Amino acid sequence: MTRLHVPIPLRWSDFDAYAHVNNAEMLRLLEEARIQAFWRPDEGTGPGADTAIMDARPGAEALALIARQEIEYLAPIPYMRAPIDIEMWIGRIGGASLEICYELYSPVGVVPRVLFTRAATTLVMVTAATGKPRRIEQNLRDAWSPYIEEPVQFAKRG
Amino acid sequence: MTRLHVPIPLRWSDFDAYAHVNNAEMLRLLEEARIQAFWRPDEGTGPGADTAIMDARPGAEALALIARQEIEYLAPIPYMRAPIDIEMWIGRIGGASLEICYELYSPVGVVPRVLFTRAATTLVMVTAATGKPRRIEQNLRDAWSPYIEEPVQFAKRG
Amino acid sequence: MTRLHVPIPLRWSDFDAYAHVNNAEMLRLLEEARIQAFWRPDEGTGPGADTAIMDARPGAEALALIARQEIEYLAPIPYMRAPIDIEMWIGRIGGASLEICYELYSPVGVVPRVLFTRAATTLVMVTAATGKPRRIEQNLRDAWSPYIEEPVQFAKRG
Amino acid sequence: MTRLHVPIPLRWSDFDAYAHVNNAEMLRLLEEARIQAFWRPDEGTGPGADTAIMDARPGAEALALIARQEIEYLAPIPYMRAPIDIEMWIGRIGGASLEICYELYSPVGVVPRVLFTRAATTLVMVTAATGKPRRIEQNLRDAWSPYIEEPVQFAKRG
Repeated sequence: MTRLHVPIPLRWSDFDAYAHVNNAEMLRLLEEARIQAFWRPDEGTGPGADTAIMDARPGAEALALIARQEIEYLAPIPYMRAPIDIEMWIGRIGGASLEICYELYSPVGVVPRVLFTRAATTLVMVTAATGKPRRIEQNLRDAWSPYIEEPVQFAKRG
Repeated sequence: MTRLHVPIPLRWSDFDAYAHVNNAEMLRLLEEARIQAFWRPDEGTGPGADTAIMDARPGAEALALIARQEIEYLAPIPYMRAPIDIEMWIGRIGGASLEICYELYSPVGVVPRVLFTRAATTLVMVTAATGKPRRIEQNLRDAWSPYIEEPVQFAKRG
Repeated sequence: MTRLHVPIPLRWSDFDAYAHVNNAEMLRLLEEARIQAFWRPDEGTGPGADTAIMDARPGAEALALIARQEIEYLAPIPYMRAPIDIEMWIGRIGGASLEICYELYSPVGVVPRVLFTRAATTLVMVTAATGKPRRIEQNLRDAWSPYIEEPVQFAKRG
Repeated sequence: MTRLHVPIPLRWSDFDAYAHVNNAEMLRLLEEARIQAFWRPDEGTGPGADTAIMDARPGAEALALIARQEIEYLAPIPYMRAPIDIEMWIGRIGGASLEICYELYSPVGVVPRVLFTRAATTLVMVTAATGKPRRIEQNLRDAWSPYIEEPVQFAKRG
């Protein structure tokens, strides 16, 4: 079992009038971590390029649409210059969909290590031209297999 | 059973490079609907002032912290000038917490009516000075009682 | 001389950790006012449809690219539920470009009326397919002529 | 003459429905560069800590309010994984105010090097408690002196 570790720098503009990372901005941090970890960037290189879920470029043949997200806020994230440490793994793979799981931690080296947020995103792969779901190809399943473990467990789920 | 209907105008900046409302911006729309429906604005008037969950002003005695959110994206939201119609109700009230449920629909009068998104937010009331949970007062429970119904049912929950 | 008055509702998420409208969000408010005033929405109706600068839809034949912006922050904007009142006019029209001027005021009816911000945006009309500047057509010049006056004067310009 | 070079990573959410960095998000990139270069982070370390304009923490004694911004968009910024290279310097120092100048370039190592944006921000130092301007102290003037050069020249200024 392997988890990806994606460092995501915060921005001052992520913080709302309570001086906490805004709850909506939190999803931007998850989005950014997905792109860093799983999307093939323009340059075609970088971490995760070998496990690219899809081409991040508009006009790409396939899109990964977000079907659902679940997020549990355990502790407010204060302003920190060092990037937060986002752990990611795949909790489930179906025919055309997969569930990406996240745990957001304090920056590497900060003691004690704090778990700020737990989250999961369900993506559905579709053909851009038709919007129809498309089966996830075997080479991707193979590439992702090291990153599969149990889905994140939410403590407070209703 | 009563649901609040909150009209929320979209902004061009809500849309991402796929020309859909960005998944994170969606939470901003929910946040805005909560404030319209349940927060006491500076003016102390307006829809929902009578059922104010809290004072929206920084420096207020009580805060409503977000403990969790769950959101199901059923259809992408295209650019529309008319405000989307957000239905809101309360799915659960505990000692210091409550669950706000949402369904995001196409603007009033648009036919056919489209359900874009289902969502739920769990808020925990805390005392600002201490961060400690504070029991929801009876007058608020009374004020909210007309808006209580079954929690939103998520179709795709893992 | 006529000015357009565009009411733009604030969002809680416009406010930063100082509880002021974030300086970058301010440009989103201007952007939204431009769309309300000058862009033809999908529905093809609404204020300003008769003076549409362009089609707001991605895939449109023409784009209005932003060449420059200048903005003067005169007073911080506090949280208000009522929409702020954005006055807009056209300060200059060239072959393919125009300058849109703005003054952001407190909501209509609020006394005293406060001028929060002065701003100007230079747009260049381009053909989407080529990115080449395209001459602004006479029918648009005619439609805009009532809204032309002197460009906004900036007090603090370096 | 020395310029600070601040690498700022883009986010997918910076891009709007035209797949360009949104014009408002551009100001967030400048804001982030200011914080990286000139603000004293919580940790009290990092680039620019020695030239800290102010304490970035809410509740700080001094604030740097933004009085004006001017920005010239020379070329749209495409999605790139590598951080853009923001050059910064100080164009003017007054009693309580200073002008920060910026040029946004393609990531270090990308050839040819593209200048995307020119910008300037005028900051006014104020005492947080009173909102009154406060004279910039000599130790800061000394710390910044290496970074002072001619203000950025805007090509298209009206």
